[in-house]
Order: sequence, then structure tokens, then C-alpha cells
Amino acid sequence: MSNGDLLSRTITKVGNLDERAMAEARARQDRLTKPAGSLGRLEDISVQLAGIQGRPIPQVRNKAVVVMAADHGVVAEGTSAYPQAVTAQMVLNFLRGGAGINVIARQVGARVVVVDMGVAEKIPAHPQLLSRKIGSGTRNMVAGPAMSEDEAIKALETGIEIAEDLIASGIDIVGTGDMGIGNTTASSAICAAMTGKTPQDVTGRGTGIGDDQLNHKAEVIEKALKKNRPDPKKPLSVLAGVGGFEIGGLAGVMLGAGAHRVPVVVDGFISGAAALIAAGLAPNLRGFMIAGHVSVEQGHKVLLQHLGLKPLVDLGMRLGEGTGAAIGIFLCETAARVLAEMATFDEAGVSERSEPAA
Amino acid sequence: MSNGDLLSRTITKVGNLDERAMAEARARQDRLTKPAGSLGRLEDISVQLAGIQGRPIPQVRNKAVVVMAADHGVVAEGTSAYPQAVTAQMVLNFLRGGAGINVIARQVGARVVVVDMGVAEKIPAHPQLLSRKIGSGTRNMVAGPAMSEDEAIKALETGIEIAEDLIASGIDIVGTGDMGIGNTTASSAICAAMTGKTPQDVTGRGTGIGDDQLNHKAEVIEKALKKNRPDPKKPLSVLAGVGGFEIGGLAGVMLGAGAHRVPVVVDGFISGAAALIAAGLAPNLRGFMIAGHVSVEQGHKVLLQHLGLKPLVDLGMRLGEGTGAAIGIFLCETAARVLAEMATFDEAGVSERSEPAA
Repeated sequence: MSNGDLLSRTITKVGNLDERAMAEARARQDRLTKPAGSLGRLEDISVQLAGIQGRPIPQVRNKAVVVMAADHGVVAEGTSAYPQAVTAQMVLNFLRGGAGINVIARQVGARVVVVDMGVAEKIPAHPQLLSRKIGSGTRNMVAGPAMSEDEAIKALETGIEIAEDLIASGIDIVGTGDMGIGNTTASSAICAAMTGKTPQDVTGRGTGIGDDQLNHKAEVIEKALKKNRPDPKKPLSVLAGVGGFEIGGLAGVMLGAGAHRVPVVVDGFISGAAALIAAGLAPNLRGFMIAGHVSVEQGHKVLLQHLGLKPLVDLGMRLGEGTGAAIGIFLCETAARVLAEMATFDEAGVSERSEPAA
Repeated sequence: MSNGDLLSRTITKVGNLDERAMAEARARQDRLTKPAGSLGRLEDISVQLAGIQGRPIPQVRNKAVVVMAADHGVVAEGTSAYPQAVTAQMVLNFLRGGAGINVIARQVGARVVVVDMGVAEKIPAHPQLLSRKIGSGTRNMVAGPAMSEDEAIKALETGIEIAEDLIASGIDIVGTGDMGIGNTTASSAICAAMTGKTPQDVTGRGTGIGDDQLNHKAEVIEKALKKNRPDPKKPLSVLAGVGGFEIGGLAGVMLGAGAHRVPVVVDGFISGAAALIAAGLAPNLRGFMIAGHVSVEQGHKVLLQHLGLKPLVDLGMRLGEGTGAAIGIFLCETAARVLAEMATFDEAGVSERSEPAA
């Protein structure tokens, strides 16, 4: 049992963006050989990265996506289109390199770190797998809390430790990803609890359920919220009541990264639910987050707005696993390289504008 | 003087997408270890690439961005925020690798092919520069046609030849990019002529002009359209009347690529104007185009809609040079790799959905 010391220390350590580094980055952007502002979000992201890393020219070279997997007791209510066995099967697929995140991470040059945070089945040891089971899946949140508060703390601290290990190994940027049959149900419940929206507002089709099952899913979430009465002022109670082990772990990764001034690229809806928990615990953390994309899952827009995050791309994706985060990492690296590598007007001997800016 | 044979032959050669390859690509997407459709636009793009290349598993490995530069006589009317000398200065910047497109192309692993299609100044020979000057900048389109129809044909055929050379060297995908002070003015005029919108609807701030200059720019375009009366049914007359040498060249690159079943990633507003000309000459070509991004320049949305192209990303960019195309190329390569490299449900031993799809 953890006493929560690591969690408290980490929350305290989350600081502010470095305003001076940001001002220097913005000033350099304005000296690069292009009309000021003409690279849009790439410029903004480079400035945010400077503020996070605390240096005028940020670096995004060593990249990792942490994919956390766990099972959810709430699947007993029949809220998912796929059987629970798929969670473990997909973990094996991650380890063999055959899943969507493996391909996209190879394309962007990011390491994939696979973590078993609480898959129901036993997964054989594998050199690429971090076994950090908090339990064999959560309990059914309709009948009571999905996990104890101790387990919630343990999930968060496990994520913090994984982030710290990655940072110690030289990682410049971290993306988050998830796998867990049933985890859009938990995420919708978290989203409703943290934002005050109704379950109907934030419940989507997940892996692809039909209309009847969608209504049923929202009712299940409503029941779970009534049963557990999670308090948005106490994100730990939300995580324990209606969350998941991988969601807690991902919130921990975000806290650990932010505390060490490492940018976190948040994936889709499940990672977004983790971001709600993490930012609930440490509101400053939002400045250290970059939303990789906006998912088709309808609650995602709601929670991004709540967090004040503007997604980088909208490609109609809803796979999770960190696939949207990986694309976001590519854009962050691009943004950092633009700032670092483009020539200035002086260096290139290019004339500046002949009339004042609009 | 060209007799236009290459142009006619190329237009005739633009075929249809390969429906069988597309059906096979879609069927494979549905067998990959993810809920069907959950990679959204990446799936759609992989299917389009299959249809273009005529193979069920398309390949995007060898990538190039063709950046064409030229000057515009219409700058005499004072429509731009930057002096004309910047066109040549930026070509030198491209050749030294210091411009935005150089950085982003390095990031995506694409070659940058720099072409002088008609820069006013003489640019010293350089091993990386293709000197294909049609003239030393266009004439002022307010006073008469920007170029002769012969020059328009020559610009198009130059682009076709460059595309064919690249394809002969093994390029799988081509992006388009532009440089030319004054070329948003020409592009707005093309856009108005080809789509029937007013100059006001399709005229934006280009590199960053103020309100007064914006109104003036729209008036200049109105005058040029009245003077030249370009006929949207005759895209050559539009190009000659109010176009530019780089715009004609880029339209040629698109035609050449499409005729050889090579996908073209179209950059922003200027490349979009070239796409209007190219698709005007060969309507089927639209199936071979992928819109890399949507630019801030307001006419870009209008022309994308006219072409039926849905941009991949919206990052608030308005630099040109092929920067949006390069990001689009990255997403195309990602899409192709997902289709080629992800495991199927069978291969990975992952269970399929336990109930019928929604």
C-alpha cells in the first residue's frame, strides 16, 4: 500500500510555463524567413514546447508513446462490441509490432512502451512488456467503486514512475495511449463526473456499438454515477469510483512528465479522461499538454474544451492506442525543427516586409 | 514554341482510379486489427492511394516536393507586403536548405526540387536548381494577359517533363509548392475566374497586407478579370490571362503525375489555383489529388470545395512553398504503411466483434 507521497510530491512539482523561454522562441519565430505567423499552429506549438522545456529552442528528438492496457468490470453490463479477451490479445499484438500504434510509432520514430496496468488475463512475461498489474481488471462500477482509493493512488504512482524512468533514459516528449475493452464506458463516466455534462452528452459508440446499445451504455454510466457519486473536486474519488487502471496510469504518466517539464501529447478520449483526472489534481499541468487529435468519440470534444486544449488534427480517428498522440508527436517534432533549423532573414539575406504588418 | 502535343497527350492519358485495387485495399483495411473505420481518413487515403497507383497495397517511400518560383508583373500595382526581390532571395534560401519547406521536407524524408519557372532576377546556376525560365516574370495582368498562350503551354509542359523525370527516377508521390511575390493575387484571379466567385470572396491577405491594401488587391483582380475576360471553360486562357509561370508549371506537374498514376499532394492556395487549371484541363485528375492542408488564405476553402477535395489538416498555415503538402505526404506515407504493415485479425489471433457492426 502506497502512502501517496510520490503522488503528492509530483503534484507539487508541476510548475508554470517558462515565460522568458516562450518570449525568446516567439521572437526567433518572427525572425525566420517567412511572414510572421505563417506557420500557424507549428509556431504556437514550438513556443509552448519552449515554455515547457524551459529553453528558447526546444528539442523533440527522443520520443516515446506509453500504451497502457487494463480491463473493466463494467463489460459485464454488455457495453462493448468486442469480447474482453481482446484486451490481452491486443497487448500481444503490440508486443509483436502488428497494431496500429506500432506502425504509426515506427513512422514517427517513437518507442512504444507497453504496460499491463490490470489486464484480466495473465500475460506471459516479455522483454518489451512492463507488468504493473494493479488488479485483474476493475470491479463493475455499477455495483460499487471500480477500484479502491489505494489502488487509484497506486495506478497514478505507477504512471509517475514509468514517466520518470523514461525521462531518465533521455526521452524529450511522451505520448499517451490506451487499450482496454470497456474503457470508453469508464471514460464517459469520468468525463460526465468531471465536466458536469450528462452521460448522454459524452457517451459515444466506442469500438462501434449500435443505437440500442448506445442508450444502454449511457444508462449504465448513469447508474454507476448514481452509485458512486464521484466528486469532481476530488479527482481521486472519480478515478476510484468510475475509472480504470490504465486511465489512472496514464494520468500518472502525465503528472510525472509535467513535473519534469517534459511535454505530453494526449491521444483521444481515454487519454483525455486521464487528462481530466491529472489536470484535476494539478491544474497547471494543462500547459504541459498538447492534444494530438480530436477523436470521433463525442465526449472528446467536450473534455478538450473543458481542458482548454485545441487538437492539432481531426482525421476522423477513434482507435486509441496512442495513434493520435503519435501523429501529434510528429507535428511537435516538426514544430521544434522549424524553430531550430530555419534560417533567419539576416542569415539568409532575405528582405523583410516593405510595409508595416497588417 | 511548343505545339502542345505533350500537353494533349498527357491530358488524354489521365485515367480513372482503379476500382478493383480500391476494393481490395478497403477489404484489407477491414481485416486489420482495429474496429473497421477507426483510423478514419488514414484508411480513406490508403484506399485512394491504392486506386491511384493501381495496386491493393500502395507504396509511399520515395517522396518529392516540387517548389516552383516565378515573379508576377502585377506587383507593380502594389498588392504585396514584400518586395519582388524576395522571390529570388527565397530561391537561394531553398537551395541552402534554410526555408520552411527544407526543414519540413527533411522531417518527412522528401526531396525538394527547386525550379526557376520565371523569376525576374537572374539566379546563378546551382546543382540543385532546375532553370526553366519561361520569362523574367509575367506581365502586369491589369494591362493585358500575364503571358501568351504559347507561354502557358510551355509552362504546363515544363511541369509535365519535370514530373516525368521524377517518376522515372522512382518517385512514388509528389507534393507541390510555390514561391512568388504577388502570386496570391494571380491565384485569387484564377480562383474567381474558374469558380465564378467574386474577387472579394477569394482574395486574402497573402503574406500579410492590411485592410486598405486588401480592398485595393481585390480591385486590381477585378480590373485584371475585366481586361482579360478569362473563360473558365478554357483553362489555358485563364492561365495565360491572369496566371503565373509557377502556377502553370505546378498544374503541369499535377497532370504529369496523374497521367502516370502517381499521387499528387496539393499544398495551399497557389497550388490550389494550379489544381483548378489542371483539373479544368483533365477533370479526372481530381481523383489523383490529395489536399495536404487548408490554408488561412480565404480563397483556398472555396477552391477546395469546387474541386471536391477535403484537406487533411488545418494548422492555420499560409506559407506556401509546399509546407502543407509535405505534411500531407507524411500522412499519406503513414496511411500506406498502416495498410501494408498492420496485422490482420487472423495473423494476430485477435477476436473479432462479438455482435454485428452498428
